[in-house]
Amino acid sequence: MITVLRLGHRAERDKRLSTHVALVARAFGADNLFYTGDYDQTLEDSVNKVVEKWGGAFKIEYTSSWKTLVKTWRGKIVHLTMYGLPLKTVIDEIRTVMRQFDLLVIVGGEKVEGEVFQVADYNVAVTSQPHSEAAALAVFLDWVFQGTELDKVYPDALFSVVPSAKGKIVKRRGLLESDFGVDGLTR
Amino acid sequence: MITVLRLGHRAERDKRLSTHVALVARAFGADNLFYTGDYDQTLEDSVNKVVEKWGGAFKIEYTSSWKTLVKTWRGKIVHLTMYGLPLKTVIDEIRTVMRQFDLLVIVGGEKVEGEVFQVADYNVAVTSQPHSEAAALAVFLDWVFQGTELDKVYPDALFSVVPSAKGKIVKRRGLLESDFGVDGLTR
Repeated sequence: MITVLRLGHRAERDKRLSTHVALVARAFGADNLFYTGDYDQTLEDSVNKVVEKWGGAFKIEYTSSWKTLVKTWRGKIVHLTMYGLPLKTVIDEIRTVMRQFDLLVIVGGEKVEGEVFQVADYNVAVTSQPHSEAAALAVFLDWVFQGTELDKVYPDALFSVVPSAKGKIVKRRGLLESDFGVDGLTR
Repeated sequence: MITVLRLGHRAERDKRLSTHVALVARAFGADNLFYTGDYDQTLEDSVNKVVEKWGGAFKIEYTSSWKTLVKTWRGKIVHLTMYGLPLKTVIDEIRTVMRQFDLLVIVGGEKVEGEVFQVADYNVAVTSQPHSEAAALAVFLDWVFQGTELDKVYPDALFSVVPSAKGKIVKRRGLLESDFGVDGLTR
């Protein structure tokens, strides 16, 4: 089981970034996400709407104290940071550890307190370059699951995509809908 | 050579998301990025500052017409979309094609015109779930380069990270600086 902890959400600045982090967590096989910083009902609503529409049991939840969450966490803790050890050098050990332990994956915001580096069992760098917490989380989970998460389907989904070379085909629980008819399907 | 095309940037809403997309492009081995939508000097400045500090020759550039760019593109075109064909089913062909052709990788914004699906040689789904264009781009490039991009170093960088298990160590062209001394280094 994988839980993501997103630190320091600011409702004004981070709404869309945090939504992306949460949707990445869901799409790449994490089970739930906690966030700290500002409580944000709009963020939770956006994520919950995606879950309702596209399926699965992903949960998003606010926590006022990451320290309490970390202190009571009974599994292992990974902190994704460009200052950590290269992904390739730790991924095997993390996969092994996951056979026995749940994983808490921490992704920071703008500024991460030094204490986070201390409580993490693994500080992991998905490249040592600045980029994006959504991207770092996606690549990390893709390496953890070795690409198997890409095949994930949600049998309970209200909507699902029918992969297509040129079109945009969405199935609504049994019914086929297409956005435009480039695959020869009617609108 | 890989060029990224980011469609429909809105200066108000997308500043940070588009910055993330550009930084992902750079960190995962693309050479440059064009964006359409609003011209945004702040976006360009953020990206250029990262390049100045962390090295490399990555370029960001505005273009008023994606159609012209696409029409004059002499290589192959990949469009990342949750409606496309699964990454795993097309990645081998794309890697082969790249031996001969430059790649233009299109990532959309909120709404993508149907025409984009038509001009793309490959519509590629990094999962068929909604998540994040920054994440989709990162995972796509990670699969293209098979993880080799994670080892990339920038010899001309003003700053570079010294990977660390617990600390935050940054080297400034020859000099070693650490943000906090958890690795036994002084501040």
